[in-house]
Amino acid sequence: MTQIEYARKNILTSIMKKISSQESLSGEVFLKRLKEGKIVIPLNHKHKIKKPCAVGLGLKTKINANIGTSPDKDSSSDELEKLAVALKYGADTVMDLSVGSDIPGVRRRILKASCVPVGTVPIYEIAVNAQKKYKDLLRFDINSILDCLETQASDGVDFFTIHCGVTKKSLDALNSSKRLMGIVSRGGAMIASWIKKNKKENPFYEYFDRILDIAYRYDVTLSLGDGLRPGSIFDATDNAQICELKILGELKARANKRNVQVIIEGPGHVPLDQIRENILLEKKICRGAPFYVLGPLVTDIAPGYDHITSAIGAAMAAGYGADFLCYVTPSEHLRHPSAEDVREGVIASRIAAHAADIVKGLPQALEWDRKMSLARKKRDWQKQIKLAIDPQKAKLYRLSSKPDLSDVCTMCGKYCSIKLSEKCLKL
Amino acid sequence: MTQIEYARKNILTSIMKKISSQESLSGEVFLKRLKEGKIVIPLNHKHKIKKPCAVGLGLKTKINANIGTSPDKDSSSDELEKLAVALKYGADTVMDLSVGSDIPGVRRRILKASCVPVGTVPIYEIAVNAQKKYKDLLRFDINSILDCLETQASDGVDFFTIHCGVTKKSLDALNSSKRLMGIVSRGGAMIASWIKKNKKENPFYEYFDRILDIAYRYDVTLSLGDGLRPGSIFDATDNAQICELKILGELKARANKRNVQVIIEGPGHVPLDQIRENILLEKKICRGAPFYVLGPLVTDIAPGYDHITSAIGAAMAAGYGADFLCYVTPSEHLRHPSAEDVREGVIASRIAAHAADIVKGLPQALEWDRKMSLARKKRDWQKQIKLAIDPQKAKLYRLSSKPDLSDVCTMCGKYCSIKLSEKCLKL
Repeated sequence: MTQIEYARKNILTSIMKKISSQESLSGEVFLKRLKEGKIVIPLNHKHKIKKPCAVGLGLKTKINANIGTSPDKDSSSDELEKLAVALKYGADTVMDLSVGSDIPGVRRRILKASCVPVGTVPIYEIAVNAQKKYKDLLRFDINSILDCLETQASDGVDFFTIHCGVTKKSLDALNSSKRLMGIVSRGGAMIASWIKKNKKENPFYEYFDRILDIAYRYDVTLSLGDGLRPGSIFDATDNAQICELKILGELKARANKRNVQVIIEGPGHVPLDQIRENILLEKKICRGAPFYVLGPLVTDIAPGYDHITSAIGAAMAAGYGADFLCYVTPSEHLRHPSAEDVREGVIASRIAAHAADIVKGLPQALEWDRKMSLARKKRDWQKQIKLAIDPQKAKLYRLSSKPDLSDVCTMCGKYCSIKLSEKCLKL
Repeated sequence: MTQIEYARKNILTSIMKKISSQESLSGEVFLKRLKEGKIVIPLNHKHKIKKPCAVGLGLKTKINANIGTSPDKDSSSDELEKLAVALKYGADTVMDLSVGSDIPGVRRRILKASCVPVGTVPIYEIAVNAQKKYKDLLRFDINSILDCLETQASDGVDFFTIHCGVTKKSLDALNSSKRLMGIVSRGGAMIASWIKKNKKENPFYEYFDRILDIAYRYDVTLSLGDGLRPGSIFDATDNAQICELKILGELKARANKRNVQVIIEGPGHVPLDQIRENILLEKKICRGAPFYVLGPLVTDIAPGYDHITSAIGAAMAAGYGADFLCYVTPSEHLRHPSAEDVREGVIASRIAAHAADIVKGLPQALEWDRKMSLARKKRDWQKQIKLAIDPQKAKLYRLSSKPDLSDVCTMCGKYCSIKLSEKCLKL
């Protein structure tokens, strides 16, 4: 049975108990939301991990770190190092997006080494296999798709991104949308090209029920991908994007009916003033399904700093109700990320998630800020460093610049406003 | 005559012509907003600079970089290096916040070397002088205040932060506000301590007309400081903050009547869901005066990354109408910033400003993103690098990770979504 199925039978499983208590949510509310598909637990029956998590309404905003090989950067040990960095700095889940030479090998190593849920995008392995075998990455069919899903599920993958919303219909909407950037999703471009080449419907859409069979058997959560997400702020919230979202909303209902858990993926590149609308639309169209956003990046002009452009968008998105943030690293649009890029991406994403958790009213989030403010007021530097999101960096900064007086910092020295307030104002 | 006085006589000065044309705003609209105090030109008669700017409604969001010595970091050449970095990376103004040993010397060197407007916080020099002379930083009076303002104005300072809203009344509001962090503004703490010690009203408030005399003579823009800004998200938008803002609103009207230009300073530490309210309140209470925000930082827990916590808040604030962003560096709350911290702070702040300019509908901002998206679609790497907010970093990333195929990047290599779309979908 899947977690949603247990919930529907009103059975609070041990994993539900553990997670709801960590999240300070009553078992009853947790069960109700799981039942309605507003909360998911991405956890394959076959994957034993120390830090499972749930994603959805009323929970801490989760963040995901993408890792994985590419044709140009094809070292599994590099990816395992990035996994370690992502875990150290607090990623709640990781996705293996490998498109290098040994996809199954890398995946299995990541699954084994990860203490958090692991996701994949199976179309990558399917296309890379086709490329290897036939020198044509589009030469695949429903059988090779199902074979790949079965293998990955039996390996223990906890969630799959499935681009089932790229259909003849949504591609018609794309054609009439007159986009600046076209399709920027790798999986989305593969499926769209397959549809055009074969003049057939997207097999992930056409055979969705057979995909559900596999997902159900292993309790793999389906993350319904946004293959038509905007890749430029000019393409945000257009007909193509909304048409795809509506298809995902229908498929979400079908999957939940079959006791398969679902997450919805979202943009992308979105200007500040369209972020709220994007979240509200998803929540309405997909009946409260957990929303997993990539960024959104609020401008296109800052390659090298897209962890910042996306932290801005992600904080707003999560503040308005997005549940799950896919990190973006400083290397986005420029190169395959390094371990240092992963570190910067995870931290920026956690800052965004935490800023949102404050306005989501999560008691643990508020308590963290309260403790930090108190340590700051007391000028207790050890405590400030300990409480910092990255104690190592905070310590390094503090030690690099020693003040003459030990209870202040080198910014103001003896003119410290907090010290002055304490001394003269008894504040 | 001051710029606002010229505007009131319907005289479009050469500087107004130059700036309004750069900003693609008609002279007529520019003049009207200058007249109403919704736009300011911070430019001392005595300061000749190559890059003057205006701040306010309908203009590009401006960003300020703070530099200046401290008792522990007291090198004027370090500060001149930071000035050069701030200018190179695009600061629209700088503020010299020195509290080291030779405040006038540092200020004069910065004024001479800067091609953009320079601001100061005169209370720092006043208090540091009192500390030197009497070993009591609070031993100053209206005469030493006016002397300092006169000297700084005649040196050519373009805008002064004046903490005239910290009064007996706003301190009463502070006492009843039961704040977590008290006063975190250095100038605010000095004035509040002075009021308490002397049991007299704030001389910057009491003798505001005499300050206006000096500001008027040199056309120094007054930036009315928020000495009671929140220093923790728990203190945001409280009675003390709003009480002070109302006082600033009254003083803004008085200053404008005397043909002195005014900017209003704002928070600080503010949770995501109070940012909009903060901007709307300032715009209402201060009748559209340009709003200059420090951050706001949307969480307290990320020392080492406060350029990111503040870029999130600043983008939102400017998106809702803030006009002027004071940068925050990664060293905030930890140490006196290094030149590298200045670089990171300026860029994060410019990203926030630009993201807001997109939703403010500024044609030049939109055009920049459009060009970048087109270069990305064409996989024109040279153009992408040239258009990047920091071409040096973008180039470094690109060169550090060379792809096998020159028209893609190492993230996806031959599986590039844009290349696939072009080839198979003719997008």
